[in-house]
Order: sequence, then structure tokens, then C-alpha cells
Amino acid sequence: MNAAEAVNDALGALHARFADVRDGEQADYIPQLTRADPDDFGLALVSMDGHCYSAGEADTPFTVQSVSKPFVYALALSSVGLDEVDRWVGAEPSGEAFNAISLEAGTGRPANAMVNAGAIVTTALVPDTPESPAFDRILACLSRFAGRLLDVDEEVYASEAATGDRNRALAYLIRSTGTDYLDPVAAVDTYFRQCAVRVTAVDLAVMAATLAYGGVNPLTGETVVSAEVAAQVLSVMATCGMYNGSGEWLLRVGLPAKSGVSGGLIAAGPARFGLAAYSPPLDPAGTSVRGRAALGALSERYGLHLMRNPALPGSTVTLATTADVLPSAPAGRRERALRERVGIVAAQGALDFTAAERVLYALDESGAERTGSVVLDLREVTGVDSVALELLHAGLARLVADGRRAAVVDPGDRLGPSDLVRERTGRDLPRYGSREEAVERCAQALAGPG
Amino acid sequence: MNAAEAVNDALGALHARFADVRDGEQADYIPQLTRADPDDFGLALVSMDGHCYSAGEADTPFTVQSVSKPFVYALALSSVGLDEVDRWVGAEPSGEAFNAISLEAGTGRPANAMVNAGAIVTTALVPDTPESPAFDRILACLSRFAGRLLDVDEEVYASEAATGDRNRALAYLIRSTGTDYLDPVAAVDTYFRQCAVRVTAVDLAVMAATLAYGGVNPLTGETVVSAEVAAQVLSVMATCGMYNGSGEWLLRVGLPAKSGVSGGLIAAGPARFGLAAYSPPLDPAGTSVRGRAALGALSERYGLHLMRNPALPGSTVTLATTADVLPSAPAGRRERALRERVGIVAAQGALDFTAAERVLYALDESGAERTGSVVLDLREVTGVDSVALELLHAGLARLVADGRRAAVVDPGDRLGPSDLVRERTGRDLPRYGSREEAVERCAQALAGPG
Amino acid sequence: MNAAEAVNDALGALHARFADVRDGEQADYIPQLTRADPDDFGLALVSMDGHCYSAGEADTPFTVQSVSKPFVYALALSSVGLDEVDRWVGAEPSGEAFNAISLEAGTGRPANAMVNAGAIVTTALVPDTPESPAFDRILACLSRFAGRLLDVDEEVYASEAATGDRNRALAYLIRSTGTDYLDPVAAVDTYFRQCAVRVTAVDLAVMAATLAYGGVNPLTGETVVSAEVAAQVLSVMATCGMYNGSGEWLLRVGLPAKSGVSGGLIAAGPARFGLAAYSPPLDPAGTSVRGRAALGALSERYGLHLMRNPALPGSTVTLATTADVLPSAPAGRRERALRERVGIVAAQGALDFTAAERVLYALDESGAERTGSVVLDLREVTGVDSVALELLHAGLARLVADGRRAAVVDPGDRLGPSDLVRERTGRDLPRYGSREEAVERCAQALAGPG
Amino acid sequence: MNAAEAVNDALGALHARFADVRDGEQADYIPQLTRADPDDFGLALVSMDGHCYSAGEADTPFTVQSVSKPFVYALALSSVGLDEVDRWVGAEPSGEAFNAISLEAGTGRPANAMVNAGAIVTTALVPDTPESPAFDRILACLSRFAGRLLDVDEEVYASEAATGDRNRALAYLIRSTGTDYLDPVAAVDTYFRQCAVRVTAVDLAVMAATLAYGGVNPLTGETVVSAEVAAQVLSVMATCGMYNGSGEWLLRVGLPAKSGVSGGLIAAGPARFGLAAYSPPLDPAGTSVRGRAALGALSERYGLHLMRNPALPGSTVTLATTADVLPSAPAGRRERALRERVGIVAAQGALDFTAAERVLYALDESGAERTGSVVLDLREVTGVDSVALELLHAGLARLVADGRRAAVVDPGDRLGPSDLVRERTGRDLPRYGSREEAVERCAQALAGPG
Repeated sequence: MNAAEAVNDALGALHARFADVRDGEQADYIPQLTRADPDDFGLALVSMDGHCYSAGEADTPFTVQSVSKPFVYALALSSVGLDEVDRWVGAEPSGEAFNAISLEAGTGRPANAMVNAGAIVTTALVPDTPESPAFDRILACLSRFAGRLLDVDEEVYASEAATGDRNRALAYLIRSTGTDYLDPVAAVDTYFRQCAVRVTAVDLAVMAATLAYGGVNPLTGETVVSAEVAAQVLSVMATCGMYNGSGEWLLRVGLPAKSGVSGGLIAAGPARFGLAAYSPPLDPAGTSVRGRAALGALSERYGLHLMRNPALPGSTVTLATTADVLPSAPAGRRERALRERVGIVAAQGALDFTAAERVLYALDESGAERTGSVVLDLREVTGVDSVALELLHAGLARLVADGRRAAVVDPGDRLGPSDLVRERTGRDLPRYGSREEAVERCAQALAGPG
Repeated sequence: MNAAEAVNDALGALHARFADVRDGEQADYIPQLTRADPDDFGLALVSMDGHCYSAGEADTPFTVQSVSKPFVYALALSSVGLDEVDRWVGAEPSGEAFNAISLEAGTGRPANAMVNAGAIVTTALVPDTPESPAFDRILACLSRFAGRLLDVDEEVYASEAATGDRNRALAYLIRSTGTDYLDPVAAVDTYFRQCAVRVTAVDLAVMAATLAYGGVNPLTGETVVSAEVAAQVLSVMATCGMYNGSGEWLLRVGLPAKSGVSGGLIAAGPARFGLAAYSPPLDPAGTSVRGRAALGALSERYGLHLMRNPALPGSTVTLATTADVLPSAPAGRRERALRERVGIVAAQGALDFTAAERVLYALDESGAERTGSVVLDLREVTGVDSVALELLHAGLARLVADGRRAAVVDPGDRLGPSDLVRERTGRDLPRYGSREEAVERCAQALAGPG
Repeated sequence: MNAAEAVNDALGALHARFADVRDGEQADYIPQLTRADPDDFGLALVSMDGHCYSAGEADTPFTVQSVSKPFVYALALSSVGLDEVDRWVGAEPSGEAFNAISLEAGTGRPANAMVNAGAIVTTALVPDTPESPAFDRILACLSRFAGRLLDVDEEVYASEAATGDRNRALAYLIRSTGTDYLDPVAAVDTYFRQCAVRVTAVDLAVMAATLAYGGVNPLTGETVVSAEVAAQVLSVMATCGMYNGSGEWLLRVGLPAKSGVSGGLIAAGPARFGLAAYSPPLDPAGTSVRGRAALGALSERYGLHLMRNPALPGSTVTLATTADVLPSAPAGRRERALRERVGIVAAQGALDFTAAERVLYALDESGAERTGSVVLDLREVTGVDSVALELLHAGLARLVADGRRAAVVDPGDRLGPSDLVRERTGRDLPRYGSREEAVERCAQALAGPG
Repeated sequence: MNAAEAVNDALGALHARFADVRDGEQADYIPQLTRADPDDFGLALVSMDGHCYSAGEADTPFTVQSVSKPFVYALALSSVGLDEVDRWVGAEPSGEAFNAISLEAGTGRPANAMVNAGAIVTTALVPDTPESPAFDRILACLSRFAGRLLDVDEEVYASEAATGDRNRALAYLIRSTGTDYLDPVAAVDTYFRQCAVRVTAVDLAVMAATLAYGGVNPLTGETVVSAEVAAQVLSVMATCGMYNGSGEWLLRVGLPAKSGVSGGLIAAGPARFGLAAYSPPLDPAGTSVRGRAALGALSERYGLHLMRNPALPGSTVTLATTADVLPSAPAGRRERALRERVGIVAAQGALDFTAAERVLYALDESGAERTGSVVLDLREVTGVDSVALELLHAGLARLVADGRRAAVVDPGDRLGPSDLVRERTGRDLPRYGSREEAVERCAQALAGPG
């Protein structure tokens, strides 16, 4: 690595900027957490290609604590589905601290899965069978998110279990509202164990990157959860991940995030990257002071705000003319026909709803709108999602029904199998391997008998 | 329009699906609102290119009510800046209803600018001078967002003013916490007037599209607010726009949104589209029943969820080999050198932090990593933001410092003026108009004296 | 005064004990309050006979502020009755500070009349007519409670009015919940004026004593409000008078009380005394530090706790025998009959439900229960309330119906007019002026023909 | 019983009035409670003399449930004292339902001992030793309050224990705030057992009467708790006993009270009576519908409101003249001296602070204020508490110091041992057995040598 070292340099600069910050207090409700080195400070960023950058103590192990919550929420969503999860735990910010009781009046549902009460519920929603105990599933899931086998800090687990009355109280409270499936003793025990899983800042960045990458671990290529579940988890992180500071965080930093009491902090840029920081001293809200500062500065410095990203797409569609295709000065009737009556629309990149709309709009704008032909060039298209495919079929069908002639340059069969195209557009759409060939055929047809 | 009519079809299908829904109650706190036709139901979508699609009563005028809040918040942010706005109004979801008191303990700040208390504060933050009264600024701003001159429904304004005790109470309460700049009588009056501005669903979709398009009205091309302000507004809409159902909405629909008591509802897909619905009957939370259903279904049906969007970029970067450039079978020493020691990296589209990282990483991977040359082809790049530019400069500087030879195909001067490049990379980077030329020069250099 | 000077001594000792306390802060929300002398410290006690005791600055004038609340509540209760008052303001402790919003969910009723919101409502419930404006009624009422003509500190009133946004907000909030009778501007203005009425510690002690004395001013003898209203006011003072410290106060001090921001504090011992303290420095809850300490110590030192008072009645009833009446050794049949078959029950003091029960029980126990006669001696009875009268009649009726002979020594006609007695007991009950006469007649009857 | 049967008649009339009320729902969280007969309706009243009156199912056993709370609170206060109890549980109304969490911010203290959380704490404060387990102490204490040996409904206990998650949650929550002494499992188990103790309405009336009688069981004469503790318990019942309706209850009914989920309800009139009702159907707040109605009506009908009671004392003090003592027309100098210069003050009943003040004031008023003599006749005084004694001594001391001559008719030695009197008043106060003797001696002294 060399040119890309510039990215490490960027993280390094942020690390240097905040390494000397001395604010914050380490968690001390169990002795193990007080033993962490307050000077430890690690940063890590993992791209959608699985490229990993880091600075400082990014390989120092610590217990994951509350940063486990979004991932176990993902596991619960995968196991029983959003509607079932939603019956037992909400998705509203509680406006309260991490250990607030926050049970919804009437239903008794915890406000969301990012506060302790909700996390205990999601943990309890993970199926627990003799051959596959809930905690084994959780550990396996966290490991798949991290791309390596994680383990438990047994000493921390034992301490948490010894001091976890508040969480025990939450579990009993939840069951008392009618959440019968929940065994308070077992759920809280599993939850303590899940919080004691050991990770590094790099692990957390990979885990966050997996959420950002639609549920696929960019390092291992494994699909850990579905794209739908990943989006759901990121949404809840966006509104509830930073407890009662979530709104301000989204406003200023603009990234779904989650913090933990041991000093871990993750953030994710959907389809862009996973980020993590580790530094034990916490602010009063329970978030790593240096982590918060560094991720905030990173977002501001590098324009990572979710609502400003993505850069406006530059070139989904290009309109071309036959002059581009037939550069030699055409002279005859056929050439005139071509020039006047064949439009060319070239699409690029991955096509989704938004891009498909642009393509359709361009088709209308190209050439002579009413009677002319149009060539749709899909060679530079890298993907077409099902929604875009449907819209393209529908648009082409409307064109054809209107009497216009359409040809497609589609050597990669982006439009799908011929019979699907026929079914949806009402006819066999001519597909060609090159733009020249398509234009030529259109010209022939237009020049036709005339 | 013809092919693109397929998008209208899509909206039309959703309209048909929910037109018969009979749930909900119209607002009745002032008589004017009860006179709206409960069957009115309009949908509109505006793309980043300013294309406008609609279904149903998309041109029926109604008063904007609370949908004005994000836009006046944008005006306040533009006028006095985020830090000043933040002193007086927070950005946290209140977990409460639209007219909740929601003043932060200690500071007395309203929870956020999407609840009435916060909206009154943002209205009061708009500068008010004799030559340019606050309300004139507000009406002008809303009009710029909509791309046409809006006006006030004076009858509704008069009614709101006659029944607005709760808002008056909020204003006095806010001033009582030390918000001295706020004149309760004037602020509330301006606020009532702002709520009575008349819009259509199409107007609202344009307004939402302007936020989505980084503050630029896609119809008029006018920059209404900065990209930064647009992102800030969208963030607060994401966490607070749907009152105490904001979390659930972001989880399931995945779009920053804002509803109003007259039946208006907007949603925005950043860099993608603006959406609006209009239908007077409201659910208990005060959101248009049909609007909520239609926008939710639209998001689900067309994959518009913010956290799933954008489609993963397919092709920011392509690696090429000299074989692509020099197809004729090369035979001599020079050709071998080229083949072995010159990598080609072609970037496409708009480059931001994420894309720049991919480019840098590709540079490292291309050709012979240690000693070879690399050609960076920027011809298909449509834009480079300042962050990406800096990273590219830094990465190229590192390459060069490492003794590698780099050439850039950059007919559009994407890398910026030569002196900036020299300053940042430490040398004059050779830039060429075509890939062939660049490769040729590299080959010459490599073949060098030998 | 001389022997009773011992009571002044007691107050003086408490004054001396707390005069040097330097804790607390004076209210400073209006400049006038900061000008009070922080060393001022007055104590006053007024008995049910109108005897007045005091120590320190008991005649220094200050504005009554929130101590006006119970008295205006009394006026509202007198004007429109408990049920109407109850429609608009509750009687539950709010668990919140004095200026808390505390409106009941659903109804919008302020929690109680001792917090500002509730006090504004009670002020607004005072009838306001051109010939008798609300404030004139309030000032007249407060003056009757105090036993002298009070006036307004116009400077304080002006200052309150200039800074009273929070109270204005409360008023608008209340009207917005449907309390249509309330004119926010007028109600708040009257409220500010009421708070600015000038009093002394002695005045406040007289006012408290009037509540304690069942609504009768013990100085002037005027009935200011009914005994029922006085009891209602004392009840609300008991549960809500000390804001969110009311429970602790009743537990430890045991007296209905009310504090004000200018340093006034009253407490009342029903049927025993009124107490007041004045000392400007306040604790964080807004109660006079020295006042609280002195009244608490007074209660503890002199056993004034409501729940320990009253001392158990020693002697409502005495049983006597004929031996007491006929001391000379009786020898004949008549004498034996008397000794064996005539019981004497003498009642003392004021008879209410409790005392009447004791009298009836004693009648059953006296003499020969089944067939004998009984003489009820009411000469030492000082009063019989309607309930006791009814019970006595009912009990005597049962006795007579059972065949027993009853005679009453009732020179003061405590049992009421003869026809009422006849109606209730079913017969003419023989009433005599002396015990001897009554016993003699019984003996005659018993000895009868035999 | 015969005359006193009139009291039973009164209860019977109330019983008849509400027996047909069909509102309310029985508690059903455990099956045992649903088996109670909804028609059961018992009323009981016990006087300070231990007289017991009842109507309806006053002897039907049921489990005490929350009505145990004030009595176990009394036990905790007796065991560890108010200050220690106060460290762990507050005395403020929570403004919330019976099972609300209501832990004080900061300290984690439950709001008060009448809500479940606070009751669990008070139960846990009862000392628990191997030889005297906490529950044994509790059962013994409840039995002493009731005046008979109570037992546990083991089936109800088992059911409560099986469904008591919310109470378990409260216990863990409390310990998690640092209440280390509390063992959640043991405390909750004891609490369930305490709630399952079996009582009747008559038992409850005796228990309430014991609180009203200063901690002395009026049936057995046993001192169960101190007068101080009884007053503390009654205070907390007054502000918190009826949950979030306590203020309204005290306002309208005016009696400290406590309700339970099985349909029991007690109320106490300090120094007057204990009341109890039993009827299973509950209102939404968890209070017996018929019980509430009957006790409310009883209070109103018989004037039992705490703040109206006690009847104003009629005759603590009487002023007499020598004419009463020396009826024969006096002629000489000695007689004139007596008539002019000897006042007589006769006190009656039990003397406390209030009464003592009246006596002292009367001493000043009697006879010739400056130079004359005064005779204080204490023959009809039934008791003098320590505070009154102190005041009398202090007042007499002041008289004597002022040169007045005082004599006391005190055959019962109400003023205490001579040496105490000498110490406090500064001299030997002449005490006589009869008024005549006292007056005679005064006359001799006055007539003196002259």
C-alpha cells in the first residue's frame, strides 16, 4: 500500500488531533472496565471493497458492550422478522439515557433495541434450542459480522452478572407486561455474555462495514444478514443509536452510529464504509469522548454526512446523436433519416428507480419524439435492479405502443431474458451487440421502402 | 412524455390503491380545515432533473401548515447559522406529539424545530427588519423552494390566529426561559401566517426535491439554501419529522419526511427525488392517512429506503492493461516494459472520499507495485469534490515520493491547476489528453535510455 | 400580659435559635424582591381566642405572593362551590415545582390550586363584574382573612407584570385546553396584583388562624368563609401546599402549610392556632429557610403535629351512681330500687359523632341494662352538633322502645325543642333542671305503686 | 347494646345505600382473587374505647394485600427509626399508580411506602434474624394491630409469588440504585407473604383504630407502636394512601386511608375511630368501589373530616369569682379584698400546648391583673402533657416574678412534684385540696396585717 496510505494518513492526523484530549471518565461499575488504559485510542475504517485503514490502538481487544446491540438486533430481525420483533420492541428514540426504563405505555414494549431494555428483548428473541443455544448463535453471528472468530472475556462476564440488578429488573419488568416468551434469568445472562464478547476497533469497523455493505461482510464476502435487515438496523442506529443525543449526532455527524460503555463506537456510511473508534474515557452520555470527537471530525472533514452523500450522480445517462456513430459526413436520404429520426440514449452504472426514471425521460427527449426511433445503449450499465428493470420494460412498452421503434444495445442481456421482455413490452425487442449495428438497423427500417 | 409516463403510471397505481381508504379524521380546530374535500388525494414526485410526475389532486391548493417547518428551519439556518439556531432549539426527537411542550430541562430549548414550540423559535430567528419583514422573507423563501410565487390563505390565517392559544402559550413559555429575542405576539403571528401559505402537492414535491438536491431547486436551478443547510434540514426531518413516530417511519419507509395538519406530507430521497402527498383525513398522530400509506408503499415498492440506497456503485474504477491500449501484438523490449510495468487506472463518475479511496487503492494494485509506472485516466470522471481532490493529490504525492512514475489522462483538468498539483504532490505531474499518449510517454520513460 | 408572656418567650427562643442561619437565596426574578432585608425574620402565632404572639420582625410588610393562593382558593370555593372549582382545577399534588406546568392529561386541569397554573385558574373563577371587579373581591377577602384593610405594593405588581411570561404562558395553555371562561390577559393581571398584596407575619398568622378556626376570624369574629370551605382549603394545603415536599412536610411537621417566594410561610393547626413566619432567604424549593426551620421546630417542640393532636379526650362521659346523688344512707325499698336500677351518665364538653357514640355506649352500660332507668346529665355539655344530636335522639329512642325509662338533666335544652325530641324518640322525654330532681322522679316511678 | 345500636343502625343505612352498586371490576391477576364473592360488602367502625360496630360481611376473611403497607411501614419505623427509613423510601405522593416505578431521580428511593416499590423497601427494612425472621415479626405485628392471631392464605401467597414479576423488577431496580441491604428474592417473597395475610373488615377497623389511638390497640390496650410512629404513618396515609387520588380523597373525605386490591379499605380519624370496608369490585385506581363510596358518605354524613374535626373545645377554662366561692354576702375588709383582688381560673380536660396557652391567658385576665392574687383550679383537669406542664410552670413563674400571688387547687398533683415546681417557678407554690381553702388562704394573705 502506498497511494492508499494517504487514507491512513488521514486517520492518523485525526488520531493525533484528539490523542491528547483528557476529558471523560471510564466506566467503573465493574472493576474490569477501570483497568483499561485511558490512553488507548484506536481508529479504523473499512471500505466496501474490504480495504482496511487504521490508526492508534486499533488492534487492542476490549469488550463490545452495547455496540453488540445493533448486531444482535440484526440477528433477531433475521430470525423472526421485523413484524415479530416490532411486537416486542419499538423503534422510537426514548429521549432518555441508555439504561432508562422506557417501556411504552400500554404495550410495555421497550422504546427501541438500542437501550438496555430493548436489547434484552432482542437477545431473548434469538431462538434458543438445545442443539443451538441462543448465545452460540449470537457469538457466531457477531463473528460473521467481524469476519473472524470472537470470544468472551469471562471475567468481565462474571462481573457484569454480579452487578446487573438493573438489567435484571428490566427483564422482570418486561415479562410482567406480558412478554411471556422471555425468561428473565436466561435472557439477562445471555445479554451479559454478549456484552462481554471481545473485539478490536478493526473488528468493529468490519462489523459496521458489513451493515453498510447491505449485510455482506466486505472482507469475507459472506452474506451475514439480508440487505433489508441491514437497512433496518442502520435506520434504528440513525434515530436511537446515540441515546438521547441521537438527533444532534445525525444533524452534525450524519452517520448511523452506536456507542458502548467500554469505549467502543461505530458509525456506518451506507454503501460507503464502516468506521470504528476505541477510547475508554466516556462523556456523561456514555460515549467515548475521543471516539465521538474523531468520528465527528472525520465526517466533517471528509464530507461523510449521510444526507450530503452521495455526490450527485454525474452521468447515468448520455444522449448521443448519430453523428457520434456515423462520423463520416452522410449525404443521402438514409443519412438524413438517421440524423433526424434516430436518437441514442446511453446509460451508465447501476440502474435503480432513480436512474431508470432518467433513462426513460431521456428516451422521450431523444430524437424525434413522436415518430422517430431510439437506440438504448446499455453496454456501460453495471447492474439493473428489479425495480429499474420493471420501469424500463414499462417505458419501452409505452414507446412501442406509441408506434416508435426501439432498439437496444445490450450484449450483457441487462434487460433480462427475451421472453420476459416480450411479456412485459408486448413484443420482441431487437437487441444488438454494438451501437453501430443498432443504428444501422434502425436506419434501414426508417429508410424502409421509401 | 411517453416512456416516462411509466413513472406516472406507477404513481397512478399507488393512487388507485389507496384512494378508497376511508380512515382518518380531518383536522377541525379551525372551520376552514373541515371544508377541505376528504376525497382529495394527490401524489407528486420531482426528480433531480426537475422532471415532475403526479397523480390525483396534485394541483389542489391547501395550506402548508407544519410542512412549512423544515423550510423555515432552513431559512433560519441560512440566516444565522447552525450554532446560533442550536442555542435556541434542539435537534432531539421529543418522543411526544406535535404540540407537546417539549422544552429541554435547564435550557428551556424546544426539543426540535419540527414541533410547534421549536418552529415558533425558528420563525422568530428569521431576521425582521422594516425594509424586509420576517414574514416577507419567509414567503419569499418558501416561494423559491417551490419555484413559484406562493400566497397566503387569509381566512385560514385569521382563524389560526383566533384559536392559537396553545401556540401563544408556547411562545410565552419560551421567552420566560430567557429567549429574550423572541416577541411572543409577533412570532406567533408570523408563525400563523406561515402555516397559512397555500401550496399544492406538486409545490411540496418541488420543495422536497430542492432539499434532496442539495438546496438547488431542480426546476429553476436556483440555489435556495446551501448543500450544508439542506443536509441539516433532512437530518432533523429524519429523526423528528414524523413526531413520535419518526423512528418507526425511518425504519420502515426510510425517508426524511414531514407531515402537516391540513393533509400535506413530504419525503425526500437525498440526491434522488422529492415526494409529496395530499389527503386531508389524518391518523391520530396527525399525519395524512392516505399520504402515509402511499409514500410508505412507494418506498417499499421502488426500493427508496435511504439506508438501502444508493445502489452499490458498480464502476468507480476500472483497471486496464496496456493490452487495452496497445492491441497490436507488441514485440520489442519497450512493449514488454509497458506490459509489465505500466498499470492503467480509469476512474468514472463523481469522485468523493469513498471513490477517491478506491482510486488510490487501485493505483497501488495496478501494474508492478514497487517500481512500475501508472496511468490514471480521469476522462470519464464527471466531478471531483474537494475532499477527493485532496486525497488524490496526497496519494499521488506518496506514489511519486516512492519513486514511481505517474501520468494522468486529464483533458478536463480534473486534478486542478498545475501549480496546486505541484504544491501538493511535490512535482509537475505529466497530464495528457488521451490514454494512448500517456501510455506512450510512460513507455518511453521506462524504456528510457535502455 | 404576663403569664401568657411565656408563649412569646417560646416564640422568642425559636427566633433566637434560627436567626443566625445564613442559608438560602432571596428570590431575584424581580428587583423589588432582592431589596428585602435578608436578616428580617418574624414569627407569629394566633390562637382560636384571637390571642396573638410574635417574635422578631412580625410587623414588617412584604408582598404575600403564593401565600395568597389558599385564600383565593377559599374565595373561589365560596363563590362557585367545590364541584365547579373541581371541574377546572384538581387537588392532587403535582410532584413538581411551583411553576411546573402540571396540567392533567385529558382534561388540561392544573394539578392543584397551590401551583401557579392552578392559582391562575382559581383567580379566574372569582366572579368579575363591573360593580365588583374580581380583584376588588380578592383584596376584600384577603383583608377579611387578615382582619384589617390590606393594600397592594404597586411597584412589585408592575415588576411582576413585566416579567411574568411563564404565568402568561400557563394562562394561554389553560385556555387552549378548553377553559373558555378564562381571559388569559385579565386573569394573569389579577393574579400578579393579588401576589403583590402587602402583609405582615402577624397578618398571615391571623389569616391562617381564620382557616384553623373554621373560617371565622378569631380577631374580628367575622365569618370569612364557611367551615366547609376552610376544611377544604386546609386539606389542599396539607397535600399540595409545600409543592414537591408536601409529603415530607406533613410527615415531619404535620401541619397544613403554604409558602411564598417573598419569604412568607403559614401553617395551621385546625381548631388550635394559625402560625406564620417571614424571612426572605429561600431554599431551592422556594420556601423560607428560617421559616421552615422555625415552624418545623415549633411543631416538634410543642407537639403540634396534626396526627398526634388532639390530646385524647379525657372525660366526655362519666358514670355516676345514685350514691353520688343520695349520700345519706338509704334504707327503704325506694332506696334499694334507686341504687340498683337507676344509672347516671354525665356528659361533658362539645358533643360530636365520636362523643355521642361514647354517651350512647355509656347509657347501655349504666345501671341495670335491661329494665332499669337512666339519667342523662347534660349540664356540663357545651355544645351538641347536628350529628351528635341525631345520634342521641336515635339512641334514646332505642332505649325507650326497649322499655327503659330515661330522664334527662338538661336545663340548657341541649337536646333541642320538645317536639323534635318527641318526633325523634317517639315520646316526651322528661327533662329536669337538676340531677337530684331527675333521680327523685325516676325513683318515684320505679318504686311506683309497689 | 341498645342505645349504641344507633351507631350500628348508621352503618347499616350506609351499607344498604351502597349494597346494590354494581360498578367496578375484581382484581384478576391471580385466580384466587377472582373467586371472592363480588356481593360481599362489610363495614366496621371501632372507637377509641374499643367499641366495635359493623354491618354486612364484616367478618368475612380476605387477604390484606396493600392495606398491610401502613402497618409494615409502622413496624419499619419502630425498628429502625424515621431517619433510617427516610434514607431508603420517601414520603412524597408519586402522582402515579400503585405499581408505578416511582424511584426518585438521583437517590433511587421509592416515592413513598404506600406504593409497591416503597412497600418492598419497608418490608426489607424489618430486621431478619435466624431466631426472629422478618416475616414472623411482620405477622406478629399485624396480629398485635388486629388484636388477634392472624394467619396466611398460602394459596394466595403461592399465586402472588408465581406472577410477581413486576414486584421482582422493582426489587432489582431498587437494589441497583445502591440499596445494598435489600435481597430482592427474599424481600419480594416476604412481601408476597405479607400481602396474603388473612383479615376481616373488623380486623382492619381495629388496626386503623390502633393507629388513630396513638399506637395503642383500643381492644387489647397493648401499645403496638409509639404515638410518634402512629402519627407518622397516618401522615403518609393522608398524602399517599390513595395513590394518585390521595389529594382528592383528603379534600373530600378528609381521612388518612389505604386501599388494597382484594377490596379492603381503611380510614382513621386520629383520636376518634378506625374505619374499614370490604367489597371486592375495584375502580380503575384499584380502590373498592363500595368501600370508597361508603367511607366517603360516612365522613360527609357524620362530619368526620379531619380538618373540621375536632369540635372547637368549649370549655378548657372557666373564669370564676369569689362570689362563686363565698356566696354569703361578705361585709368586711377582708371580703372586699377577696372580691376585688382574687381571681379564680378553672381548667378542664386534657391540657396540651393549645389549652395551656388558654389557661395562661386566663390567668392574666383574671382578677386584678397587676397586684391581685389568682387561684388556678386544676381539679377537673384529666391530664397535662409535658409541653403544657412546661408552659404552665413558665407562666406561673412569670406571674410570681411579677409580684402576684398564686395558689393552686391541685389535689391530683397535676403540676408535678413540688421540687420540680420549685425549680421551674422559682418558689414553693401553695397547693390546696379545695377551692374554698385556696381562696381563704389568699384572702388571709391579702388582708394580711392590714
